[in-house]
Amino acid sequence: MSAKTITARVLTAEAFAPFGDVIERSGSPDKIINQGMCGRHHDLARLDFGSGRAGISLFDAKARSLPHTVDMVERHPDGSQAFMPVDGVPMLVVVAEDDAGQPVNLKAFVSQPGQSINLHRGTWHGVLAPLGKPGRFVVVDRIGDGDNLEEFWFPEAYIVDAAES
Amino acid sequence: MSAKTITARVLTAEAFAPFGDVIERSGSPDKIINQGMCGRHHDLARLDFGSGRAGISLFDAKARSLPHTVDMVERHPDGSQAFMPVDGVPMLVVVAEDDAGQPVNLKAFVSQPGQSINLHRGTWHGVLAPLGKPGRFVVVDRIGDGDNLEEFWFPEAYIVDAAES
Repeated sequence: MSAKTITARVLTAEAFAPFGDVIERSGSPDKIINQGMCGRHHDLARLDFGSGRAGISLFDAKARSLPHTVDMVERHPDGSQAFMPVDGVPMLVVVAEDDAGQPVNLKAFVSQPGQSINLHRGTWHGVLAPLGKPGRFVVVDRIGDGDNLEEFWFPEAYIVDAAES
Repeated sequence: MSAKTITARVLTAEAFAPFGDVIERSGSPDKIINQGMCGRHHDLARLDFGSGRAGISLFDAKARSLPHTVDMVERHPDGSQAFMPVDGVPMLVVVAEDDAGQPVNLKAFVSQPGQSINLHRGTWHGVLAPLGKPGRFVVVDRIGDGDNLEEFWFPEAYIVDAAES
């Protein structure tokens, strides 16, 4: 099987904006609380749970590595989904634009320490992929009725490669 | 000033149940996803945002240590609040029962690696207190109008001590 190659880039809020939020500290806290002992970086993700409600779950994901094969992407039509690593393990984040129900123009990003992501409702994305080590994640997503999952299997897989360094 | 002493105990879901949820892995995942590569521990917290909505914020809190002085507790009448450490730093969690608007019967817990907490709506609690080192936390709480904060200052402070080991 021949394959199309995608180069993984460093995750930035700007590049990720069409797909979701990068949840990270940028600059000073929005508010100082607890008599000066705690800084709050406030409300960093566009959450949307449609007819459902927010829930907190824990995901334990096995390690992946580069090059990484993407034969499928999925999306959740009914809600956003946030992934917050608790072990400092980088994530490979694969996302795609939608063209009339088909994922197109795939992009790949590697998260940096301190970065989490929130995928906006309906964003095509690859599987949760901690790089190099298994990863534990706090996940905030929609709890509710309905399947809330669409998968798209590519006739020809993509391969995600590291950027030349 | 004389002080009342509280002994900090190991955090367990059972002991914490009157105040909130311990968000932790207990037993096997509820669901295996991503072709066997990821386990999901599903919907571990009773979230409640009243008339507001869920938000994700990041808190950076300075280190505390034992013995720890509690001169104030607070509560959020309009929503639950979840604290998820991302550095593996233990938290000192001080909570109290409510007796007609007064916090009574204070309890203190120390979280273990892998544990996060969700304070139920309206639970009296102490300030965010990572022990021994500064702590970074993902926080899921209510975003919305209104003050959503009540403080209670004790006429006589409490001192939280470590359990004898």
